Amino acid sequence: MNFIERLESAVNKNNSLLCIGLDSDVAKIPKHLVDQPHPLFSFNRAIIDATHDLVCCYKPNIAYYEAQGTKGMRSLRYTIDYLHEKYPDIPIIIDAKRGDIGESDRQYAKAVFEYIGADAVTVNPYLGLDSLEPFLTYKDKGVIILCRTSNSGAVDFQDIRVKNMKLYEYVAKSAAKWNKQYGNCLLVVGATWPEQMKRIREIAKNMWFLVPGVGAQGGDIKNILATGLRNDKSGIIINSSRSIIYAGSGKTFPHDARTEAEKIRDTINSYR
Amino acid sequence: MNFIERLESAVNKNNSLLCIGLDSDVAKIPKHLVDQPHPLFSFNRAIIDATHDLVCCYKPNIAYYEAQGTKGMRSLRYTIDYLHEKYPDIPIIIDAKRGDIGESDRQYAKAVFEYIGADAVTVNPYLGLDSLEPFLTYKDKGVIILCRTSNSGAVDFQDIRVKNMKLYEYVAKSAAKWNKQYGNCLLVVGATWPEQMKRIREIAKNMWFLVPGVGAQGGDIKNILATGLRNDKSGIIINSSRSIIYAGSGKTFPHDARTEAEKIRDTINSYR
Repeated sequence: MNFIERLESAVNKNNSLLCIGLDSDVAKIPKHLVDQPHPLFSFNRAIIDATHDLVCCYKPNIAYYEAQGTKGMRSLRYTIDYLHEKYPDIPIIIDAKRGDIGESDRQYAKAVFEYIGADAVTVNPYLGLDSLEPFLTYKDKGVIILCRTSNSGAVDFQDIRVKNMKLYEYVAKSAAKWNKQYGNCLLVVGATWPEQMKRIREIAKNMWFLVPGVGAQGGDIKNILATGLRNDKSGIIINSSRSIIYAGSGKTFPHDARTEAEKIRDTINSYR
Repeated sequence: MNFIERLESAVNKNNSLLCIGLDSDVAKIPKHLVDQPHPLFSFNRAIIDATHDLVCCYKPNIAYYEAQGTKGMRSLRYTIDYLHEKYPDIPIIIDAKRGDIGESDRQYAKAVFEYIGADAVTVNPYLGLDSLEPFLTYKDKGVIILCRTSNSGAVDFQDIRVKNMKLYEYVAKSAAKWNKQYGNCLLVVGATWPEQMKRIREIAKNMWFLVPGVGAQGGDIKNILATGLRNDKSGIIINSSRSIIYAGSGKTFPHDARTEAEKIRDTINSYR
């Protein structure tokens, strides 16, 4: 099965469009884990065991692991191995926002897909199609292209006018074309921009969107579903990180994360 | 000293605008190094010892090290520690093309500047100014913004027309403005686009450019200098990777690299 088939299978099995962002920060995880040999892995494993039947995927942001050096990267690898072994039905997105050219780009694709073992990765389109090809040619993997990001600075370049559309619309249009050729493209569309999400859905009717920015960043679930869902009531992955993984700070943190994840999953489903 | 002062000091000391790209690939380094405990570090150390008086900086592309996992990242760290200890006058750019938002972005800045120990990093502007700020606020570090990349796909988005200019020109204009505020911005301008380099120099008269794409990618040194130099005959860093580091494949590879580096440095100087 390729990434999108695996994703759709997990969506159906768990009746969920929720993705949990494993943006695990040593400064924020419960204190009693910090002395463990691999604190980020211990934290992730507990969150995963408590929530695996509520999600359609997990999304570690690699920046948090890189900031901890080789020790952090080891925790990321352990997390991914654990997921693949214990919950092989749940695909894993590495949020890495990569993008380079030529041989350097092939090395990035090798790093995220072969060494780290991700099922999908986020990539930055600024360098053009040839910078995405080394990722796209891994046919079984998902390539999630930044289109409209959730930050306020997204307007700086993504909103500039290109002929009769805006840059993010042009990226969406290009990605829809690439997806016809490769079949494994998705788009990042921030939860904080419902009007833009509507436009992107008009352009890319059948594509999957990865939607960050609910919870801590303020994106509204009702709005996202009203503007982002495909006609089949699917096609969006709603990511939540901090509001779930840091729902509790004591010994009951896995239970607290589950309660919050269940609440968000059910809220999403109530608007589908 | 901040990054730009350190860079200018190395340019003057070594009479060189040459940067050597340490894009060190285990599949390409001399066979007799592969059994060393840290082959990429052994390779880099030999290249550095043979060329340190010919360059203004070194630029490892992090993708090559990430593709080798924790072992590769350890080689990168060792390389940087070695450079900082033995040749403290030569600054180090990590080519990482990073860019994310909010806390994730701060983690990337922490990873490259604090954990890896880079003096400067390349970043992708697509996410907007707020995505660059966590890097820019490290006042002593250099932030090298992708403007016009050397690949053929650069035209896909960087050339689209924005009002009365192209996107890469708009990025250059924005970066020049940010540089006025932060003082530590540089631009990536591919060696393969002399016409565009001329435009960017008109827009960003006083900024430093990092110029990849000579040698293996075909960029012409004479053209780069004719279009990219500032009025003070400086302001560009010309990166060469493969043609120098793989100049030889046997035991004399450091000597071969030195010969090639010297040739390129002197060619550059002959056109200044």
